[in-house]
Amino acid sequence: MDELLIEARLNEYTPREPNPNVPFAPEEIAQAAAACRDAGASVAHFHARDPETGAASTEPAVYCEIGRALRASSDMVVMPTLGATVSTAIEERFAHILSMAKSPATRAELVPLDLASANTSVYDRGQRSFDNEDSLYENTVATLRALSEGVRAVGVRPIGVAYSVPSLRLVEPLLETGVLQEPLYLQLLLTREGVLSGHPATRRGLDALLDFIPDGVDLEWNVLGYGSNLLELADVVLERGGHFALGLGDYPYLELGTPTNADVIANLVARARAHGREPATPARVRERFGLIGP
Amino acid sequence: MDELLIEARLNEYTPREPNPNVPFAPEEIAQAAAACRDAGASVAHFHARDPETGAASTEPAVYCEIGRALRASSDMVVMPTLGATVSTAIEERFAHILSMAKSPATRAELVPLDLASANTSVYDRGQRSFDNEDSLYENTVATLRALSEGVRAVGVRPIGVAYSVPSLRLVEPLLETGVLQEPLYLQLLLTREGVLSGHPATRRGLDALLDFIPDGVDLEWNVLGYGSNLLELADVVLERGGHFALGLGDYPYLELGTPTNADVIANLVARARAHGREPATPARVRERFGLIGP
Repeated sequence: MDELLIEARLNEYTPREPNPNVPFAPEEIAQAAAACRDAGASVAHFHARDPETGAASTEPAVYCEIGRALRASSDMVVMPTLGATVSTAIEERFAHILSMAKSPATRAELVPLDLASANTSVYDRGQRSFDNEDSLYENTVATLRALSEGVRAVGVRPIGVAYSVPSLRLVEPLLETGVLQEPLYLQLLLTREGVLSGHPATRRGLDALLDFIPDGVDLEWNVLGYGSNLLELADVVLERGGHFALGLGDYPYLELGTPTNADVIANLVARARAHGREPATPARVRERFGLIGP
Repeated sequence: MDELLIEARLNEYTPREPNPNVPFAPEEIAQAAAACRDAGASVAHFHARDPETGAASTEPAVYCEIGRALRASSDMVVMPTLGATVSTAIEERFAHILSMAKSPATRAELVPLDLASANTSVYDRGQRSFDNEDSLYENTVATLRALSEGVRAVGVRPIGVAYSVPSLRLVEPLLETGVLQEPLYLQLLLTREGVLSGHPATRRGLDALLDFIPDGVDLEWNVLGYGSNLLELADVVLERGGHFALGLGDYPYLELGTPTNADVIANLVARARAHGREPATPARVRERFGLIGP
């Protein structure tokens, strides 16, 4: 797809320091998303947060409230996290998706499947220590299958998030065994120093993933830069035909002042137009991936 | 180190089909190792097996018996697996190393630490199915630290096995926090189709690891080709200054007829000499890594 798919990663579990424009409350998330839509984004990715403290929320009711606010404020594709909880009870991992699916007014359309089990200990080079040496994010093939079947049963489409080359080698087996479907929305994870579960957010780190995207699979790939300024890789991604997942959830983008999510999207869209690529509309994204829509 | 370090991977859990020369019994392992030593290998890597059936053995007594037979038959560096059991009780994972350390006649010198938690489901493309969708190999930072401390307490040196780029990003943090030590023996895992936890055993797969070996770390790297003909990558590894871990445990090498482990090593040594590289002796390897020796 030549049009540029832009997924706005609105908030994750990011604090309001150093950038206070991270949305917490459902209405804040919806307003930020609508502004991103005006700037050129087509997919809204979000996590539920406590409106006051920003603490992570796992409440299905809060996810429904966000879904309703999003639907009311724009036509964006709705993509909540599946990482609201990493409880070992699989059903809890997608309980919020099932709640959202009870009404077209709140239903999710896409959810990310992380295609790897990984150590998620974060390293602080200055302190020479890990935050937690026990951290393990468990996504066996059985887990991925259960998550995929659970969300597809209510009409939600899983996307694949590749952490490293083994994730990319897993793509075709997962397609062949029905865990993923073509056309595939494939996200490539790049991470800042100290976050060791992905490739570094450098040209080399990106190239070493692109080299292993399976040939002959009908897919669109985008790049996610956790803790990293993805705009620095914008030109190469645009040239290679890739798409973007970015926003204040991943990086404060203080290089742009104290931007809002929409300011970041607008900066990317200007660069894309210089490469002759126009942003995709939500309708175009729904058509490409066979999504039900609002 | 310009001399070529060759680790003979003698048996793993490989069956005697299609190559009957895989050693099972302690005496068979020791004889195979001694022949590999004559051919140019300096490190003997092995798993304990039932002498008749070849079934995996987790018995510390069998590991001791192999260690004793190895010491009696050659001066090779002794490197048993740490994967004898993947029991969640850490102590059980290195119980055989502690038993071996009770006598210089059986003591291990090197053991491999797998620097990743990973899905280890193996995919059969013909059958379009995984062997076991639940497979997870758990090696959190805490696990790696416990294994490292456990074996170092008895004078055994851990090496690092890199599965993918995240493993290589973990190397410096593990050095800085004392889980690994310089000079580091770093092994790069390449795997056949269907074994998805490593990079593919291709020039591209290798390059995408080499690009992320940390600069400024005192190390020697070698390549392991699980299920793959590593001789096909011999020239590039030799040119780049790398070393080798290979043998019938990983691949039957029927391209050479029905070779013994020593035949495979001899083939590699001939290629190395064409590149002007002589095999390292066990004494040279012990000097390089500060090993205690027999």
